[in-house]
Formats: sequence, structure tokens, C-alpha cells
Amino acid sequence: MQRTYIKDLPSQVGETVLIKGYISVRRDQGKMIFFDFRDMSGTVQGVVLPGSDALETAKETRNEYVVAVEGQVNKRPEKNVQQGKQNGDIELEVKKIEIISVAQDLPFELDAEVNLDTTLDHRPYTIRSQRGRDIFSLQAKIVEAYRSALRKRDFTEFQAPALVGGDAEGGAAVFKVEYFKGGSANLATSPQFYKQIMIAPFERAFTIAKIFRAEKSATTRHLSELTQMDFEMGFIDDERDVMKILTDVIRDVVQAVSADADVFERFGTTVPLAPETFPTLTLREAQEIIKREFGRDQSGEDDMSPEDERQICEWALREHGSDFVFITRFPTDVRAFYTFEEPTEAPYSRGFDLLFRGLEINSGSQRIHNYDEMLTRMHLRGLDPLKFVFYLQAFKSGMPPHGGSSTGLERLTARMLELPNVKEASAFPRDMTRIDTRISEEL
Amino acid sequence: MQRTYIKDLPSQVGETVLIKGYISVRRDQGKMIFFDFRDMSGTVQGVVLPGSDALETAKETRNEYVVAVEGQVNKRPEKNVQQGKQNGDIELEVKKIEIISVAQDLPFELDAEVNLDTTLDHRPYTIRSQRGRDIFSLQAKIVEAYRSALRKRDFTEFQAPALVGGDAEGGAAVFKVEYFKGGSANLATSPQFYKQIMIAPFERAFTIAKIFRAEKSATTRHLSELTQMDFEMGFIDDERDVMKILTDVIRDVVQAVSADADVFERFGTTVPLAPETFPTLTLREAQEIIKREFGRDQSGEDDMSPEDERQICEWALREHGSDFVFITRFPTDVRAFYTFEEPTEAPYSRGFDLLFRGLEINSGSQRIHNYDEMLTRMHLRGLDPLKFVFYLQAFKSGMPPHGGSSTGLERLTARMLELPNVKEASAFPRDMTRIDTRISEEL
Repeated sequence: MQRTYIKDLPSQVGETVLIKGYISVRRDQGKMIFFDFRDMSGTVQGVVLPGSDALETAKETRNEYVVAVEGQVNKRPEKNVQQGKQNGDIELEVKKIEIISVAQDLPFELDAEVNLDTTLDHRPYTIRSQRGRDIFSLQAKIVEAYRSALRKRDFTEFQAPALVGGDAEGGAAVFKVEYFKGGSANLATSPQFYKQIMIAPFERAFTIAKIFRAEKSATTRHLSELTQMDFEMGFIDDERDVMKILTDVIRDVVQAVSADADVFERFGTTVPLAPETFPTLTLREAQEIIKREFGRDQSGEDDMSPEDERQICEWALREHGSDFVFITRFPTDVRAFYTFEEPTEAPYSRGFDLLFRGLEINSGSQRIHNYDEMLTRMHLRGLDPLKFVFYLQAFKSGMPPHGGSSTGLERLTARMLELPNVKEASAFPRDMTRIDTRISEEL
Repeated sequence: MQRTYIKDLPSQVGETVLIKGYISVRRDQGKMIFFDFRDMSGTVQGVVLPGSDALETAKETRNEYVVAVEGQVNKRPEKNVQQGKQNGDIELEVKKIEIISVAQDLPFELDAEVNLDTTLDHRPYTIRSQRGRDIFSLQAKIVEAYRSALRKRDFTEFQAPALVGGDAEGGAAVFKVEYFKGGSANLATSPQFYKQIMIAPFERAFTIAKIFRAEKSATTRHLSELTQMDFEMGFIDDERDVMKILTDVIRDVVQAVSADADVFERFGTTVPLAPETFPTLTLREAQEIIKREFGRDQSGEDDMSPEDERQICEWALREHGSDFVFITRFPTDVRAFYTFEEPTEAPYSRGFDLLFRGLEINSGSQRIHNYDEMLTRMHLRGLDPLKFVFYLQAFKSGMPPHGGSSTGLERLTARMLELPNVKEASAFPRDMTRIDTRISEEL
């Protein structure tokens, strides 16, 4: 018999069908057994009636067994209909169960509330929970909507390398790799140089790239391996062109996930508010607001603290009905060396951050495009241009004004669903103490 | 004045417009100067007429200068029309040129024929050539078509990790990473384990993942960092279900690039032939054909040599009009440990390779899904299950029959355009002697 997907059962009432999937729930009432079956398309209740040939096998089954089930699709009596639930008005009367695969020694009930470490220690099991499936099906939608929004705006995708010869940004702690001939390479901390190189061939380019940070940070905001969604665009007037594209891309992403209101509801949150333009504050304006509205004097600080980010987001939501807010005009000195300085407001730059529900999820700027200016800036920062010869070729061969930005996929996912820790938004998070399993002290 | 993209010039005949882009070609005839300008949307010829105010600046410009050009769009006289060329029937009469960015010390003409090492040494420059743009815009289309074909078939995308605790496949040479606390991690040689884990939550899953091979191979087929397009699917009958999906995905990719006949023509090749079903041979049948048709006795070999792959592809094209051919029934022993053995044909497996224009571009199989069987196979192969506890959780918690395959993006791109070396199909190839720039002997 051909397999029927569970989502298609409503059109099969009265028919005998074959479904294949997992046993999510099993309630053995002695003479009868009730099941919740699930497959990739949904869930359905099944029942083995007294005296059924299927009873013996049904007795042997347990949660998470993989089964093939033949049965008849019946309408439920009116009083048993579960409104608003998938297949809430039908039931599968099980005639035959075949056990395809057993599950043994399950560590806990799949939807049990366990702490994050336990969840991650058992990721190959917990990821099949409703929560796991919700997070990562939403993440799949986010990444595709992000790419699609960029493609629609004529950005060309490329593959940025993960192995690099030097540290692109010069700042963040890097992982060293034993390369050939006893030499060493680094893991990329950003696809920055490569997307800038892509400006000349394509003018607009993007990459979904893995980056790696060897920072000894054990916060709820940090991962050692991240997925960055990076774009870069040429022939801009200034950073506002980049912010405009980013705003539109984010709005497209929000639009794409807005059909999943039920997912947001399960996480106790709602689809983000993303107005046509996001509120935009300079760093100094943001500090004024924090002082005035929250009574904390942060003036003079050159960056936003986590608490600053939370409070400005709170303010932006209240005053502007926006879950997103841009912060601009950070001092040039605290930004990456290639950041373009705003000539009329030196020492402030054309860099920006995008905050979302209390967290920075994106950083961007206009970049220096003039070769000589780039050399000057490198010297000012104490960087040796000889270490950047490959990158500098792009500028030496002619580069238009350009800028771009980088969004962290895990952070965006985490704030979408208001997950308390960004690690939960990585299917296989890596940090100081974990690569799949926890790293023992002896490692 | 608002910028006009070059592709939109035909609708602006008689108008004065502003374009922004690069100078591709500059022919100084003394009193007049001819240009080919290019932007992300195309190319157009420009001319600075005798006595023009633009002449002085035009004299200063050189190839690859970034410019903003104001001019009038004119129809060309009938005799000067270049048929079949973008904007072949118009010309921009340049009124004003602004130099946005200069290019200095260009190492050679952009479309000069130079050897591969020189091309790669100057990648930030050479990638803007017609050849560079062709390869990587085609690659962008391939990767998106591949993903799109899988999404259409209900596969869910996920992000596989690049940092792993152990070597997934147990075979290929791995790069070691200095991880925290003096511990070490490896770079992934495959997303295999992770896509299998994704079977339980999503039944069908895919990832576009970077993988890393520390093999000391300096061939035209090898890279140290690769982009793999991996999918995995559950509830299959056998490996033929996987091969069917792969065939359909590849056909969708070929369909997506088929509009680019001009690109294929520039590389002296054509859009690949991908019939509805690809010819499929067991390893032994392939060896028979090689013996019969090409007079080389390879019988008894457990794998295909590069020459075998070329000859079988030659045969498949000639006999079946297909640029693709499947090879099946490799001995189980020479495949990855998780490969499902064909019970009726032991010691042969349910693994397969897909060859394309003389090169293996994909490898796949049905996998073992039974936990106990997996443990038995590990022991047979001398693998310690304790090193695989994370992976094994997926099997212990119940796993349906499943299989999948992995396509190398760079190999697929390279064979599409019949590039002699796969390195050219990587924007930033890494190998034993190169990370961006060539690694000196001293490294």
C-alpha cells in the first residue's frame, strides 16, 4: 500500500490507509490503546480497538518507536472533536502495526522540561521534540527568507572561505588550525574581506558563512561557531543605503515567518513588529534616552552594554511600536579598521548596529573604498599592510563606495522566539565547554 | 541625477542619463575616446566626441577605473549595430565623467589568458573578469537551484557544524584545531552524522556545508576546503529512492542554468544532458564495459579510477545521451561504515556514486538505521562506539530506514563549464600550497 502523509488523512475519511512515522504518545488502557502518531507532515490520533489483531504488537510498542500503521480513517463523533488541532476531527482506527525501529533507554519524556545542558547533551533526541522542530523549522525559514530577499534585490551569492591565512578583523580571538607542512591557518572570524572583494564582479553580493570566535565568553549571547548572513553592496551614497536594504530584508523575513503565529504562541511571544522604517538613534542620542528614561548615565561610553541594548529596545517598542532599532555614529576608533568615518562628524563613523528585542543582531557600515585612505587607516591602527596584500588588491584595482552588514542567524532566531540562550538556536552549538557532548575537564 | 542601470539604457534613447560602473575597455583615438562601461547589469559602449568637456577627464582614466558617467543615449547608425550583443544598437555619448576610484598597477589585462596560479594569486582582480563573473554567477544559480529543488520536495534546511569533536568518517585526513583549554577539535570532513540526526525531527533534511580535507593531494580534483550540498531522507525503501530524488534535483539544476547558453558557449561547452533517468551500472557492469569498449581490464577493482570515470561517462554520453551516470554496488567494505549492505548481494552495498562529465560529483547510499546493527558494524570495522555516543543517540531513540547523498558544489560547477581544474570553481580555493596567496616554502 502507498504511504499516506498524515496531513492528507482528512481527504481519506472512510478509506484504509498506510501511514509511517513515530509514536509520540501511547496510552495503554488495557483493552484499548490510544496513540498520537507523527510524521514530517503532522500528527493524528490512532486507536486500537478491543479485540483488534493489532493489539498484540501495539502492546509491544513504546514512545518514539518508528512504525508503519494501516488503519481506517474515521470521523470523530461530534463530542470528541478537538477544534483548532490538526486532524482534531478524525481518528485512525488501527488495523495493523509494523514496528520498523525500536527506541530504547529514552533519557526522559520528549517534551519534559529539562535544563539547557541536558537538552544539548541529548540533542539527537531532543531535537525531535515540538520545541526542537519549531526552532529549527523557523530557522530554516529565516535563512531562506533572508537569502530570497537579497536575491530579489540583485545580490549574488558566493561561498566565503572558513580557512584563512590571517585574522580578518585583527581583533576577535581566533582558532588556530594545523595546516600543511607544519604551517598554521586560522578559522575565519568574518567573511568581511571576501564579500568586499565580491563588490567588483557583482556590485551586490552575499554569503551565508560559518564564522568562529575563540572568545572565552560563557554568556547567553555567545557561540564559538556561528552562522552569519552577510551582504555587501557597491555604489552607495552612504551607510543609509545599506540600512535601507537591511530594513527591507528584515521586513521580508518577518513577513515570511508571520504565517507561523502558532509557533510564536507556543514560545509565549508574537511575530516581531517591523515598521516600514526602524527607529534610528545615534549612540549619543541613545545614551540621552537611557539617562532620561531609565536613570542610568552611560554618556561618554563608546559602545552599548547589554543593559543599554535592552533598555533602548524597550523604549523603541513603547515609543515607536518597533522590535528593531538602529544605533549609529559609533566612534570610528571602536569599529573595524575599514569603517568609513563621517567627514562632518569625526571622530564618529558611518557604522551602525541593529538591535532586536534587546540584543544586537547585526553590525554594518560604509567601508573605506579608497586604496590610499585604506593604507593610511591601517598605519594609524598599527596594522601591517603587507599582511593584507591579497585583500588590498581589490582596492588597488578600483573599488566603488560600498558598505554592508552582517546578521547573526542564531541571535536572530533566538530573539524571534525569545529563547533565553542563543545556544538553543544552534542545532549543534559549540562553546568553551561543548562540542556536541560536554568537554571533560581533562580535555 | 538618479543612476540608470546599463541594462535599462535601451528604454532611454534620446535621454540624458547617469550610469555608474567600471571602465572595461578604453580606446584613446586622440580627439575621441571610446569606452566599454560595465556595471552589475551589463555593458555599453560610450564615446567622448571631439571638443567634449568630458575629454580632459576621459584622458586621465584607465581600465578598471570606477566612474560616474553622464551622457545621452543614442541609437547607433544601422551600419554600426552589433547584432546579438547587449546594447549593440545604442551608444552613450559621454557628456561628463567623474572618477570615483582609480585603479593602479594592474598586473595584466583583465581578460588576458594567464595560468591558474596567476589567476588565483590575483583573485581579487581576476574575479571581475568575464570568466570570473561567469563561473561564480553560475555557481550562485547552481546552489540556489539545488536548495530550491530540495525545498520543493519538503526538505528542511539546517546548519551543520564545521567544528567537530571527532572525525565523522574515520577515514579522510583531518585538520586539527586548537580548541579551548589546550584541547583539540577537528574540522568536519562531512556533515553526515548531523544530517542523519535531522531525520527524526524533519524526515527530510539538507545542508550546504563547508567540509575540510587535509589530504596531501595536489590534483585537479582536490580542494582542502569544499562546499558540500548534502541531503538525507527517511522512510525510504532502498537507495533507489535517494537516487530518484537526486536525479530530479540535478535535472532541476540543469533546467535552472539552461537559460545561460551564452555562458556555456563562452566556455566551449553546452548545457549538460540530463535525461529523465540517468544510466545506472553496477561497478562490475561498468568494469565489463570498460574492458569491452576501451580494452582496459579493471575487473576486481573495488573502486573507480579517474580514467574509469572518464571512460564510463564517455560511454554513457554516446550510448544514452546522458552527461550523468550512476555507479552502484560498490563493496560494502570500501564504503563508509554506516553504509547499508544489500542483503541479496552481499558483500555489495546500497551505496552509489554519481559521475558527471568524467568526474564523481556525488556519493550516497542507504544507511544502517538499526542501532544494534550499527554497533555490530562499528565493531567489525574496529571503531569504538564510545567515540560515537552523540551520534548513536539518534539510533537508540528510533530511526527509520534512510539514506542520502552529498554533491560537491565546486566539482559540479567545474564540470558544468568543463573547467580543467576544480580550483577555478572555488572563489577562494585552499590547497596544500595556497590560502589566498601561495604559501611560501618556509611556512
